[in-house]
Amino acid sequence: MALIVQKFGGSSVANADRVRNVAKIITDTYKAGNGVIAVVSAQGDTTDDLIEKAQEINENPSKREMDVLLSAGEQMSASLMAMAIEKIGCPVVSLLGWQAGFQTSSSYGLARIRTINTERMEREIDQRKIIIVAGFQGICKYDDVTTFGRGGSDTTAVAIAAAMHADRCQIFTDVDGVCTADPRKIKNAQKLEEITYDEMLELATLGAQVLNNRSVEMAKKYNVELEVLTSFQYGPSPIDEILLTDEQIQAIKNNSAGRAGTIVKEKIAMEKMFVRGVTKDNDTARISIVGVPDVPGVAFKVFSKLAAKNINVDIILQSYGHDGSQDISFTVSRTNADAVKALLKDDYGTVLVDTNVTKISVVGAGMETHPGTASKMFEALYGEDVNILMIATSEIKISVLIKEADADKAVAAVHAAFFPV
Amino acid sequence: MALIVQKFGGSSVANADRVRNVAKIITDTYKAGNGVIAVVSAQGDTTDDLIEKAQEINENPSKREMDVLLSAGEQMSASLMAMAIEKIGCPVVSLLGWQAGFQTSSSYGLARIRTINTERMEREIDQRKIIIVAGFQGICKYDDVTTFGRGGSDTTAVAIAAAMHADRCQIFTDVDGVCTADPRKIKNAQKLEEITYDEMLELATLGAQVLNNRSVEMAKKYNVELEVLTSFQYGPSPIDEILLTDEQIQAIKNNSAGRAGTIVKEKIAMEKMFVRGVTKDNDTARISIVGVPDVPGVAFKVFSKLAAKNINVDIILQSYGHDGSQDISFTVSRTNADAVKALLKDDYGTVLVDTNVTKISVVGAGMETHPGTASKMFEALYGEDVNILMIATSEIKISVLIKEADADKAVAAVHAAFFPV
Repeated sequence: MALIVQKFGGSSVANADRVRNVAKIITDTYKAGNGVIAVVSAQGDTTDDLIEKAQEINENPSKREMDVLLSAGEQMSASLMAMAIEKIGCPVVSLLGWQAGFQTSSSYGLARIRTINTERMEREIDQRKIIIVAGFQGICKYDDVTTFGRGGSDTTAVAIAAAMHADRCQIFTDVDGVCTADPRKIKNAQKLEEITYDEMLELATLGAQVLNNRSVEMAKKYNVELEVLTSFQYGPSPIDEILLTDEQIQAIKNNSAGRAGTIVKEKIAMEKMFVRGVTKDNDTARISIVGVPDVPGVAFKVFSKLAAKNINVDIILQSYGHDGSQDISFTVSRTNADAVKALLKDDYGTVLVDTNVTKISVVGAGMETHPGTASKMFEALYGEDVNILMIATSEIKISVLIKEADADKAVAAVHAAFFPV
Repeated sequence: MALIVQKFGGSSVANADRVRNVAKIITDTYKAGNGVIAVVSAQGDTTDDLIEKAQEINENPSKREMDVLLSAGEQMSASLMAMAIEKIGCPVVSLLGWQAGFQTSSSYGLARIRTINTERMEREIDQRKIIIVAGFQGICKYDDVTTFGRGGSDTTAVAIAAAMHADRCQIFTDVDGVCTADPRKIKNAQKLEEITYDEMLELATLGAQVLNNRSVEMAKKYNVELEVLTSFQYGPSPIDEILLTDEQIQAIKNNSAGRAGTIVKEKIAMEKMFVRGVTKDNDTARISIVGVPDVPGVAFKVFSKLAAKNINVDIILQSYGHDGSQDISFTVSRTNADAVKALLKDDYGTVLVDTNVTKISVVGAGMETHPGTASKMFEALYGEDVNILMIATSEIKISVLIKEADADKAVAAVHAAFFPV
């Protein structure tokens, strides 16, 4: 008997039809003789609706109470999924984060998993029960409910796969694997059959919205082989509800015809195609601090202040100092932009915030050995008259910050440059 | 410092405005120097909505999974209430059933409280925090979530008051205390200042919908003095939303003007008025088994079968046997009527179900010493041409089963007989 962990995101379980569809995937896997642990996210817009409800009552609620509120979304989803499986006639039990043994740090809203006490899950699997785990949640040492932040259900699934020594970890999404660009936007997006953890990590971080980056980090650390595939090719396809045109749906189906999803693992076979994909991340805002004294320790002071508030900084650009002052620019998640301004404006006079920016990246493990990659990207952008605001590079990616208005044509142009039809 | 337990039902916390209103009641109590533990139900129709969602997926889900689903309603409500209190600026923490230490039996959907481990609640109160407890839930020895059934939040509140040796247990409802009849229906309904547990128990059982009967039983057992009052006289009154006419609202306000709610306790001062109230219970169905063999053990067989399915039977009427056969009639909750028929129809040929019946009762501790009570009630019904289908009496109540169509005029007539204007 193989043990398979499956994870289904919010859109895969958004309504009763989709819940039934997923229940069929799970029970088919079970009936084929496997042990199955399925992790589910909250249904559709549940999380957003709950956030809105909270905002109506308190625009700045404690993270502890938000975790209590939001974890209810996955709780409802897990129990409904269990009911759908009961209906099919397979033995099943739903487990909340604390029941599944998730012990986490106490950083509410963005908790890290400390340990997983697998006793209960092992017992249920031994009894040949399908387990449905409410994703994205655990409890901390104070016996408080904690959540893992957006995309946390991926993390739940990978952590279970690691702790239970599962044979496979399948992440079901609304895209059929990892593509060279968003197939809903770029017509010629190609599905990758394999990708390394590091490449996936860059793609995830950069907004490919397929896999949460913490889950990929964890998969890499514990060597959990991930399979990214779609739940929408099974049964009645509700794929149109996610606002795709017929053409786009056909493109996805063509891409996935007869093939499984993408496998994410440590090493992959050498291939000609070294660039793995082109991504766009709109959730970015540029902060510029103008006229900072050009003395040692300034950057440290700025960024330690942000770190203390758990605000992640992405691209950083520090100008050369002249006339005793310099400028510091960096990007943060848009949700943090106001908080960053509030934090810094008293200490530094001019703090500019620009939320109309987008980050475009090309990702690929072979990139550092191909020095032409950057110039190819810049050329494509220049060809579309797109101005580059910031640049950041790593061994496996090149990112540029551009105006949001230019984003779509920029992605299309860069993708066409690397993946000519 | 007094420790006060407060309980707020679903209609008291149905929307953001009402949540704020209740948060004010709680924090006012806290600011007056008291320790406060507030128990909340799920908001408004949340529980019904969740049941509907489950039904869409599985018309016969396991009770275990229903408990996981439904307990999320109180969880969301508790966290939202905590956020409203944070907004006011008082220290607060929400606790789910398992966090509040509720250990229950494993009869999902109708779990009994076994023990309450008060450690956590004591610690939070010691730290001068307001505690918001998600009502109606606990966990069983298998570490599964359990719920207490409808009205279970009352039970949560009384149990906490008992376990924490609280000084008062206030039950906030949409009526301002216990009245001699439903003030929304009977114009001259009078509010009772005091009532005994036993009387309240009869009123609760009989559908007065003010207090859940299990909670009154528990209050009696642990001698917890209950105070029944309304949350709607505070702040902006949303009372109209529960479909009252202006006249009815005025009647309630007149009744409650300047007075607190009703106190429920062991013994009350002797009063002239021995009848405590007139109640109506529509949630009743009459089952008749016709032509049962007139031999020993028949009633035992019938009712043990129902007991095994946890179906409560109310009025029982067994006809005198003749020609070797007899009839057995009894009443059950309407939701159980079909199940009862299904259970019995194979063993007993003719099982008749009548769901168009209502139970009308007069309740009062002094009743057994006033033999004229029954005849006064029957006279009032006769005066309105109401036919009596079944009669049941106890030391403190007289109940009659009548046609549902006659219910309103019957209550009005009986109330007028005992409480003349």
